[in-house]
Amino acid sequence: MIFVGRILKTFLSSKIYPHFDRKFIHNPCKITKVTCSPMSKSALLILAKGAEEMESIITVDMLRRAGITVTLAGLDGGDPVLCSRQVTVVPDKSLSAALQDQPQYDAIILPGGLEGSDRLCKSEVVGKLLKDQEKSGRIVAAICAAPTAFAAHGIGLNKRVTSYPTTKDKIPADKYTYVEGERVVVDGNVVTSRGPGTAYWFGLKLIELLAGKPKADEVEKAMVISTY
Amino acid sequence: MIFVGRILKTFLSSKIYPHFDRKFIHNPCKITKVTCSPMSKSALLILAKGAEEMESIITVDMLRRAGITVTLAGLDGGDPVLCSRQVTVVPDKSLSAALQDQPQYDAIILPGGLEGSDRLCKSEVVGKLLKDQEKSGRIVAAICAAPTAFAAHGIGLNKRVTSYPTTKDKIPADKYTYVEGERVVVDGNVVTSRGPGTAYWFGLKLIELLAGKPKADEVEKAMVISTY
Ligand SMILES: [Cu+]
Repeated sequence: MIFVGRILKTFLSSKIYPHFDRKFIHNPCKITKVTCSPMSKSALLILAKGAEEMESIITVDMLRRAGITVTLAGLDGGDPVLCSRQVTVVPDKSLSAALQDQPQYDAIILPGGLEGSDRLCKSEVVGKLLKDQEKSGRIVAAICAAPTAFAAHGIGLNKRVTSYPTTKDKIPADKYTYVEGERVVVDGNVVTSRGPGTAYWFGLKLIELLAGKPKADEVEKAMVISTY
Repeated sequence: MIFVGRILKTFLSSKIYPHFDRKFIHNPCKITKVTCSPMSKSALLILAKGAEEMESIITVDMLRRAGITVTLAGLDGGDPVLCSRQVTVVPDKSLSAALQDQPQYDAIILPGGLEGSDRLCKSEVVGKLLKDQEKSGRIVAAICAAPTAFAAHGIGLNKRVTSYPTTKDKIPADKYTYVEGERVVVDGNVVTSRGPGTAYWFGLKLIELLAGKPKADEVEKAMVISTY
């Protein structure tokens, strides 16, 4: 039994199943009683200079409340990022470091802000990343002006999307079905939302997709969003 | 007329009325047609380690959208502040520098977060600042767990207040009228709110009080908060 335990420990410590419950490793004999605890989901939020700070921070904060492992990555490096309303936020690491440390994330999220979104539109790295992410079926999400970066990089083609009202003309009508009457629009693995004032619901929808509706409800209640 | 204009110009350039419309100075003869444009209001948000980042950033961002001059001041200095959900925010300056640069603000705002609020409760500087602010009739505001700092420093005594639901027991019932059914409670110059999920409305109420209802409505519309 100890021998089996050692084999299991070696196996589980490997990169194949890094997310098995640690209790399981230390008590390998309890294998039949232990249910595999689902690995914490991961999300990457890309912060560019001129990003909308509340959209960025609300999303990161809410997803972390839900137990999702969020990496706040600076598009142009790990230095502090000056956001659209002059709040300076320190990213966890640079985008390149984030992709080196972990090649895949369950969700890639783009905050809005006109200048920040413009930088996301122009970034080849972001374009390639989003294409790979969409192709793999994992979540791509954007809020406010950031869905324009989806249009710029050809992400979510022929899907239902929304964006900040005044950026509607940057979402080609022949390539997307533009939705105006919903705070958050989900079409397959493409999630879009309208503005800073819809960020709570953008966060809740992402939690629902990544961690389930009960978790989203739990976060909503703890935040005191909709009791009114 | 030119002479009168010069006197007026000298007078208006003085520190007594620094906020008169510049057009007025250049066209002093149009005195009867020019309405005094109100000086930009100022707000001080005190950021302590462990503050709730979304409450802090939503409030700063919204007030700046309304043209209010907001200083994001670090309680313990000007260094980056690690907030409750591991987002690091760089304050504009330290609290002591903020008070040196400008002794009075139209509003002093405390974000929540259990650890951050605890630090605000224990700070003598914050206690004195809040007492002076309340006495002068200018706005004191706190959201989520931060109204506990009002209780700790004896601010807003006998007034209607609210706070994060689970912190209710830290607001002595014999000293305050605790309100549960409102997102934001205003009693005189004391403004309190319930949690991260009520921060939009906390921001809107502060804008209304500092810059008027039309400005609050404008910001609400631009943020796409309540069109749904
Ligand atoms: Cu935006």
